Amino acid sequence: MFDPIAKLKEYVSHASVSADPAYAKHMTGAREFVGGLLGEIGFAVEYVPTELHAVIVAKREGRPEWPHVIIYGHYDVQPADPVELWDSPPFEAVERNGRLYGRGTADNKGPLMAHIAAVARLLEQEPDLPLRITFVVEGEEEIGSANFKSFLRQHRDKLAGADFVFLSDTGIPRADQMVITVGLRGMAAFEVELSNARTDLHSGMHGGVLLNPIQALMELCASLHTTDGRVNIPGFYDDVRDVEPWEREELKKLNLSEDEYARFLGISHYHVPPGYTPFEAIRFLPTLEFNGVSGGYQGEGPKTVIPTKARVKISCRLVPNQEPEKIKAQVFAALRERVPAGLKLKITPQHDATPYLVVPPDRSNTPADQSPVLAKAFRATDAAVEQVWGSKPCYLREGGSVGLIADLKQELNLDAILLGLCLPEDNLHAPNESFDLEVMRKGIATVEEVLRRTAHG
Amino acid sequence: MFDPIAKLKEYVSHASVSADPAYAKHMTGAREFVGGLLGEIGFAVEYVPTELHAVIVAKREGRPEWPHVIIYGHYDVQPADPVELWDSPPFEAVERNGRLYGRGTADNKGPLMAHIAAVARLLEQEPDLPLRITFVVEGEEEIGSANFKSFLRQHRDKLAGADFVFLSDTGIPRADQMVITVGLRGMAAFEVELSNARTDLHSGMHGGVLLNPIQALMELCASLHTTDGRVNIPGFYDDVRDVEPWEREELKKLNLSEDEYARFLGISHYHVPPGYTPFEAIRFLPTLEFNGVSGGYQGEGPKTVIPTKARVKISCRLVPNQEPEKIKAQVFAALRERVPAGLKLKITPQHDATPYLVVPPDRSNTPADQSPVLAKAFRATDAAVEQVWGSKPCYLREGGSVGLIADLKQELNLDAILLGLCLPEDNLHAPNESFDLEVMRKGIATVEEVLRRTAHG
Repeated sequence: MFDPIAKLKEYVSHASVSADPAYAKHMTGAREFVGGLLGEIGFAVEYVPTELHAVIVAKREGRPEWPHVIIYGHYDVQPADPVELWDSPPFEAVERNGRLYGRGTADNKGPLMAHIAAVARLLEQEPDLPLRITFVVEGEEEIGSANFKSFLRQHRDKLAGADFVFLSDTGIPRADQMVITVGLRGMAAFEVELSNARTDLHSGMHGGVLLNPIQALMELCASLHTTDGRVNIPGFYDDVRDVEPWEREELKKLNLSEDEYARFLGISHYHVPPGYTPFEAIRFLPTLEFNGVSGGYQGEGPKTVIPTKARVKISCRLVPNQEPEKIKAQVFAALRERVPAGLKLKITPQHDATPYLVVPPDRSNTPADQSPVLAKAFRATDAAVEQVWGSKPCYLREGGSVGLIADLKQELNLDAILLGLCLPEDNLHAPNESFDLEVMRKGIATVEEVLRRTAHG
Repeated sequence: MFDPIAKLKEYVSHASVSADPAYAKHMTGAREFVGGLLGEIGFAVEYVPTELHAVIVAKREGRPEWPHVIIYGHYDVQPADPVELWDSPPFEAVERNGRLYGRGTADNKGPLMAHIAAVARLLEQEPDLPLRITFVVEGEEEIGSANFKSFLRQHRDKLAGADFVFLSDTGIPRADQMVITVGLRGMAAFEVELSNARTDLHSGMHGGVLLNPIQALMELCASLHTTDGRVNIPGFYDDVRDVEPWEREELKKLNLSEDEYARFLGISHYHVPPGYTPFEAIRFLPTLEFNGVSGGYQGEGPKTVIPTKARVKISCRLVPNQEPEKIKAQVFAALRERVPAGLKLKITPQHDATPYLVVPPDRSNTPADQSPVLAKAFRATDAAVEQVWGSKPCYLREGGSVGLIADLKQELNLDAILLGLCLPEDNLHAPNESFDLEVMRKGIATVEEVLRRTAHG
C-alpha cells in the first residue's frame, strides 16, 4: 500500500534547490526518487537532459484510442533561506497539527505526490485502466522554467497525442473551496533609461539649464496612465477579450470581501479602472506596473547632483488576447514619441509570457473546436470536486503568469486543468512552508476520481 | 622677504583633510602653520575651538575709525582620493609649467596665501597702514562649515565692528577675466517618500488594484514643473528679485558661448524658462531639482514586485529674496494637496541656505544704507582689478550656494567681496589639483592694492 505522507517526507529530504549549484546532488536525488517511485508503479521512466536540470518523462502507454493525460509537476524547490526563521529543519519534514512542514511540501512536492498517489491507487484497483498517462516533472520551475520551452520543442514526439495537461501548482482561497484556474496573465517586461548630460553635474553650478533625466523620466512615466487607472497607450486595450458574464458569476461565488482584502494588502484605497471590482481587475485587466526606479544619489542625506541618467523597470501584465510583441511595440512607440527633445532613450526588453485562457465546456464562449477529451476531463473534474469537496469548483482566471502553461499551449496546443491545492497559509517560498494533509487527502481522492471518470468517460 | 610660493609648498605638505579623523595631526599642523605665519607678520593669533576643528582668528588692531576688514579662508582640504590618478604626490607640491600641483593649492591654500602675502607685503611697506584686519580661517569648509554659524554666534565680540569680508574662494572663467561674485543661490533640500501597501507585493497576484507608490511618486513629481521649465508651485516665484539691467550687462561682458557650454555639458538641448538665457537662468532663477530617486527592485534583470514605497530627494536652489522656510512651506503644501488618496506621504527636511546678494555701489538698485566702507572697498577693488588685470571685473551672481557667506550676512550683517582666483582647469576637489602661479601673482598684487586703497580711500 502506497503511503503518500511517508513518501512525501522522504521526497522533502532531497534538498532540491535548483537555484544553487551546491545542491546539485540533491537535485539528482530528488529526480531519481521521483523516477524510482514512478517506476515502482509501472511507468517507463526517462531522464531527458536540458542545459541544466533534466526533465523526468514517465509513461504509461496504452491503446491510441485511450485518452492521454500529461501530469505536470516540478521536483525543484525554492532556497530555504533565511533558515534561522524555520521552526524545524526545512529538509526534515515533520507533522504538526495536521500539516507537514518542510521546504517544498506545498510547492510542489506535496501536490505532485497527491497525483502520484492517486495514480498508484487507481492502477492498483484497475490495472487495465483505459488511460494513457505521461508524467512530465521538470527541475527548473523555481528558476523560471528557462529550458522548458526548448525541451517541448526538441521532444514533442515524446508528448505526441496528448489530450490535455493536469497539474496542481495553483492555489485555493480556503480549505473548503476548490478553484480550477482557467486563465493566467501574460507578461511583457522591459527597462527604460533616460540620459542627458555626459556626466553627473553640480546642481548649483548648472541647475536650471538642462532637463534633469529624473524629471524627464517621471514626466514620461506619468503619461503612461490616465487618472482613472487605465494604461494610457494607444491601442493597449484593443485585444483585451471581453469578460463573459459566467466569469463574473464564478468570481462572485468565492464571496470575497473587499474590506478584508484591503486590510490584507494594508491599503486604504483601491485604484481600479471604472467598471471592475478589485477582484475582477486582477484577473481580467492588463496593467503597466513600475517595478523599480533608480537615479542619482540614493544614500543618506542630501547630495546636490543632477544625475546623468535615470532608469525604471516596467512590466505589463497581459490578458487574453493581448500579445507581448504587439504590446511592447505599442508601449515602445509611445515612449519614443513622448521622450522630450534631447534626452537619450534606451529600452531593454526583458522577458515575455503569453496570457492563457481555457474556457470550460458548456459556457457561452467555449470554442466549438474544443477537444472532446478535454471537455470530458473538465466535466470529470467538476463532478469529482463536487463528490470530494461537497461543492462545485470555481473556474477562475488568476492574475499571475505561469510561463510553462503558455508554452504548453503554444508549442503543443495543449490546454491544462489546474486543480488548486495550496492555501494562503502554506507559506510558499517563505520560511515554515507546510502542506495541509487534509487537503492532500482530498486532493488524492479528487485526482483519482478525475482520472477514473476521464478514462471511462 | 615673504616668499609666497615657498610658503604655499610648505602649507600644502600639511595634509589637512578635515573629513578624515586619521588626518587630525595634519589639521593641527596646517592650523599652526597659518597661525605661525600670521604671528610672524605681526598678528595676534588665537585658535578658537569648535566641536571639531578650531578656527584661527588673527587680529591686527587699530584705531576705531580705521576700516576693519575680515579676511576669510579655510585651512582644510578635500581628500586626495583617488591617489593613483595623481601625477605627483598630492601633499608634495611641485611646480610644472607655471602651476603648482598639490591638494589644496587652489582650494583654498593658494588663494589664502595670496591674501597673507599681500598683507605681509603691504605692512612691510606701510607699518602704520590705517586698516584693521582680522583673519578668520576655518577648518571645516570642505565638510559643510557645520560649526561656523555657531562660531559666529558665540564669538561675535571677536568680530565686532568689522565693515566687510574679503575672500578668494570662487572662480573666474579664464585667466584674463576677473569676476567678483556678488550673489549666491540658496537652498532648501528635503526628501519625499510615498508608501502604500504594508509590504512589497507580487505584481501578478495583486497588480491592478492599488496605486503603485512609484507611479504615484512619478505623477506627483511630474506635477512640480510646467512644460516650459518653470516650477509649478503656487507662490514659488513671488519673492524672486527682478534682475536689473546692469546684471544682464555684466554677464554679456563675459562673452560666453552657449554652444561651447552645451558641448561641455554634453547636452543637445537647453531647458530654460522663457525670457532667460542659460547663463542667466543659472544665476537669476530658482530651481526645483530631483537629485535622486529610488524604489522597488534596482538590480539586474526583472523582478515583478509592487514596492511598498518610493523615495525622491529634492533640492530647490533659491535666489534673492526667496526664503528657505517659506519655499519649503509652499512646496510641502503643494505635495500634501496633490498626494493621491490613500498614499502615505513623508517629508524629511534636510538642509537650508539663504540666498545672498550684495549690490556693488553706483548701481541703480544699490541699497541706500550700504556701508560707506563697503562701498569704498568695492570701488577700491574695481580700480585695483583694472590696474592689475588690465580690465574691469565682472560683477556676477553664481548658481552655487556658499552657506558661510549667508551666515556672515545673517549673523553679523556683513557683506563680502569675493575675488575669484580659481580657474576651471584648476581641478578643484579632483586629482591633480593645481594653482596658476601667474594668477597668484596677480591675486597678491590685487589684494594688496584693494587693501591699500580701502585704508587710504
